[in-house]
Amino acid sequence: MVKFKAIGVSEGLAKAKALVIKEEDLSVVKETVADAEAECKRVLDAVEKAKQQIEVLRDDAEKNIGAAEAEIFDAHLMMLDDPDFVEGMTNIVTDEKVCAEYACFVNCENFQAMFRALDDEYMQARAADIGDISQRVIKNLKGIADNAIDTITEPCIIVANDLTPSDTAKIGGKPVAGFITKIGGRTSHSAIMARSMGIPAIVGAGEKADEIADGDLLLIDGAAGEVVAQPDEQTLADFAERQKADAAHRAMLAQYKDKEGATSDGRRVIIEGNIGTPDDAVRVAELGGEGVGLFRSEFLFMDRTDLPSEEEQFAAYKKACEIMQGKPVIIRTLDIGGDKEVPALALEKEQNPFLGYRAIRICLNQPELFLIQLRALLRAAQYGDLRIMFPMISSVDEVRGAKQVLEQAKDMLTAEGVPFNPNVKVGIMVEIPVAAVCADVLAKEVDFFSIGTNDLIQYSCAVDRINEKISYLYRPLHPGVLRLIAMTAKAANENGIEVGVCGEMAGTAGMAPVLCGLGVTNLSMSASAMLAAKADLAKHSCGECKELADKLLACASASDAERIFTDWRES
Amino acid sequence: MVKFKAIGVSEGLAKAKALVIKEEDLSVVKETVADAEAECKRVLDAVEKAKQQIEVLRDDAEKNIGAAEAEIFDAHLMMLDDPDFVEGMTNIVTDEKVCAEYACFVNCENFQAMFRALDDEYMQARAADIGDISQRVIKNLKGIADNAIDTITEPCIIVANDLTPSDTAKIGGKPVAGFITKIGGRTSHSAIMARSMGIPAIVGAGEKADEIADGDLLLIDGAAGEVVAQPDEQTLADFAERQKADAAHRAMLAQYKDKEGATSDGRRVIIEGNIGTPDDAVRVAELGGEGVGLFRSEFLFMDRTDLPSEEEQFAAYKKACEIMQGKPVIIRTLDIGGDKEVPALALEKEQNPFLGYRAIRICLNQPELFLIQLRALLRAAQYGDLRIMFPMISSVDEVRGAKQVLEQAKDMLTAEGVPFNPNVKVGIMVEIPVAAVCADVLAKEVDFFSIGTNDLIQYSCAVDRINEKISYLYRPLHPGVLRLIAMTAKAANENGIEVGVCGEMAGTAGMAPVLCGLGVTNLSMSASAMLAAKADLAKHSCGECKELADKLLACASASDAERIFTDWRES
Repeated sequence: MVKFKAIGVSEGLAKAKALVIKEEDLSVVKETVADAEAECKRVLDAVEKAKQQIEVLRDDAEKNIGAAEAEIFDAHLMMLDDPDFVEGMTNIVTDEKVCAEYACFVNCENFQAMFRALDDEYMQARAADIGDISQRVIKNLKGIADNAIDTITEPCIIVANDLTPSDTAKIGGKPVAGFITKIGGRTSHSAIMARSMGIPAIVGAGEKADEIADGDLLLIDGAAGEVVAQPDEQTLADFAERQKADAAHRAMLAQYKDKEGATSDGRRVIIEGNIGTPDDAVRVAELGGEGVGLFRSEFLFMDRTDLPSEEEQFAAYKKACEIMQGKPVIIRTLDIGGDKEVPALALEKEQNPFLGYRAIRICLNQPELFLIQLRALLRAAQYGDLRIMFPMISSVDEVRGAKQVLEQAKDMLTAEGVPFNPNVKVGIMVEIPVAAVCADVLAKEVDFFSIGTNDLIQYSCAVDRINEKISYLYRPLHPGVLRLIAMTAKAANENGIEVGVCGEMAGTAGMAPVLCGLGVTNLSMSASAMLAAKADLAKHSCGECKELADKLLACASASDAERIFTDWRES
Repeated sequence: MVKFKAIGVSEGLAKAKALVIKEEDLSVVKETVADAEAECKRVLDAVEKAKQQIEVLRDDAEKNIGAAEAEIFDAHLMMLDDPDFVEGMTNIVTDEKVCAEYACFVNCENFQAMFRALDDEYMQARAADIGDISQRVIKNLKGIADNAIDTITEPCIIVANDLTPSDTAKIGGKPVAGFITKIGGRTSHSAIMARSMGIPAIVGAGEKADEIADGDLLLIDGAAGEVVAQPDEQTLADFAERQKADAAHRAMLAQYKDKEGATSDGRRVIIEGNIGTPDDAVRVAELGGEGVGLFRSEFLFMDRTDLPSEEEQFAAYKKACEIMQGKPVIIRTLDIGGDKEVPALALEKEQNPFLGYRAIRICLNQPELFLIQLRALLRAAQYGDLRIMFPMISSVDEVRGAKQVLEQAKDMLTAEGVPFNPNVKVGIMVEIPVAAVCADVLAKEVDFFSIGTNDLIQYSCAVDRINEKISYLYRPLHPGVLRLIAMTAKAANENGIEVGVCGEMAGTAGMAPVLCGLGVTNLSMSASAMLAAKADLAKHSCGECKELADKLLACASASDAERIFTDWRES
């Protein structure tokens, strides 16, 4: 039996066999070969196999994702059909009498260097494609199988170094009971995806994950971050007990499904869900969400090489509204840059992307892009209580600028005779420290605030939340962070506008009473966290929440605040 | 006559001939050659020439900078003596019948790829050295001369794409009257260096700088950012007039040299200088600085491959104290990471270095490094009013942690019987938003605050100050920034501790009255800005400063505040 603990990022208990995805050793050693001809044949065979693999991927992509996605694979096929590229490898083998793997590696470097030397962003991006196909050829040469996730047919818990966005996307359709990754933290992409899919997940397991062998029976607790491999009988029995208790707890929570979010004495706190695609709204509605507090529209723009049209966006926004049946749906306009890439925009690489050209900064600079989204939003707003939210606002000037583009979109639609809803509410994300500090000024310009705690903590504590080396400084209960939230809530309350929290903090167990006490009126979170938040709130009066919040605000340090919070949770 | 305007970053008028440093075209084209033997000789000649050049550089470095710096060049020489490296080039020429430049380029890529594939930071850094020497060989092949700055003998104004730290370091000993760069902003390294050297400088000139030909007579105004090339007679005469007026203005300012910084009604604001090396303190003292408000100790650690010993640090800190003759000398402990590299520490590359592992975070994690600096500081504190300042503080925990290491250093020195000053004052940089928001808590833990406005603006507005794409968002007069400064000053004043500003904002013309009005008690800036700051303050009463500050704090946006500030300056 192997037991260890790591960072639990998506709650739930799961029991299944481990599917260990090995880190592939793609390193290459320069080896001399005697029979260059045979080695050239190895190159050609590996290339041929790569072509067949890519054709399958292309056809799958065309069927499951879309024609645009499939085009990347066409480009890869073209490169593998390019005689210069293939002869580059065989020439190296013949001239230098080296092994196929090394020839492929050097050929890749040569081609990449050529592409990179061309001072053109498109050609430089092709260097990445050269890397992809060369890696595939090396994999074939080394006999390394293709991505294991594609082949999943029976229930399993994935154990991997990390899962990329496309890996987690693939999991959706497979019988995956949970996953464990070696790297990552609470707010890494895979953690967020796990919560939105509602499957247990544990990240940051480091080398401990190496103790799990493929096929081991695993028990995981995604809340506590606990992992057991090859459990003994007693542990299995205990786990079965816990699963039973968990089911009972879930049944208890289920009673909150149709209740409104409120404290025991009736102070309303609206509990909403965060979504990435319109389909995610189904789960929000099913689990009793009182609205969508955050629709991350950038997901429509990512993992594809073109931009979504106005029609495509309109359909997505409309669908979310229809699923939510008149409940509020807050759609955040394009929040890209930082760690979120949109290939079609070919944004330049930056030294500090989180402090860079992103979100509203891009939209205000590229109004042609922004207008398409705003038109789609205005049109979709006919089908529900759609609200528009601008991200990364740091000043009144930006709010006014964005509202001006919105007016322009309305004028265009009016002129064209296209129907839309002109009375859509407009709000902003409060996630940049000066926005919180100037919330009194901003509250006069908008219909609602939503505090993005992930970025707010990141900027106000100067800590990159995905940098593990300093993640100990990312502390939601830092008194400075709580004061900024309180400032924002106070300004909103005084100006009679709603103030939500849509960062990870909103869905963290026990935080709902704290945020309510700080004056927050709406909480938006992963669908799977909504019922527990309602239950947390119903346990306390508004006065108790305020008392707790005041105690936390008066703390000298995050450690003090965390102690008080834990004591309060346990009392 | 050519006239244009760019960003003036270091004031002063200068007239001299242009020294245009061309961007070298190091691109390489694959050309077939008939006579491979002759081409191989070109390779060998270029390598030989490179060795001679590096030997000269090494000897210069040894004489002017130090043995440690010279070691890099020894490493370069060893690589050029490596037969594998040189034969790599000649083999490519012989095998592929290509030109020497292309062979050098491919050989460089091959070697770099090999080094990079080795998963070892030291070896990966060697890839950069391979790049350096290959570039030098390509330059020799193309007949491109070595760095033009080395050859300066007569007065000139440098016109370049950008100046690296080592370029600006070289300028020190040369008759350079000023410089113009195509890229950069107010807080880029070259701008800061220009101000500390007191030479006029204009940055961000972009393509306009291309209109200047080498040898053109240039007139520059480093305050207004104005450039005139090939001036006509009238312009020359006008410029001579302005130079006369400027001299008169400098004479007026000179009267403030021995005066204390104060408003017209006697409210003291202590005016101090920022320094990077002990020798910089000479200019601070000469120009009437009331102390050193910021000694950036990291400059002792940069541009070298080893770490400075305790003795070396002790000597540097002691020297600064002796030059300042009992006036305060605030020494900031190691503030590295972000954009400041210390090769000897081999820090990992980060995705968002400004939000990463830097400054106090490194020191608390590597107390062995921190202890050496603290021991040197405690010992040097016997020779003046040395004060210790910790950078990048985000919490009380960090302050307490740093003070604990300081106590440990005292215990060590006591145990060893080494003399030191145990009563040194300890302060912190307030540059992370939560530190400003929690200044009331932090003020109880330290003897003084110093607000680092560069980083404070950067974090509180979420804008990388060296990213030109969004530099328009870097606004010192953003009301949110001013409020954070006011909060910090209020907490300091209520707790009876000094509160300085040591960012670029302190030395910006007209800002002294604003910061005084916000409650700041000390201003530390480039030596060249100190007299003007004293003059600015002496023109206004404390009440006028407060009134101005209150108006700015009440603004809705940075644009409004900037308008009020400009009107006030011009009235």
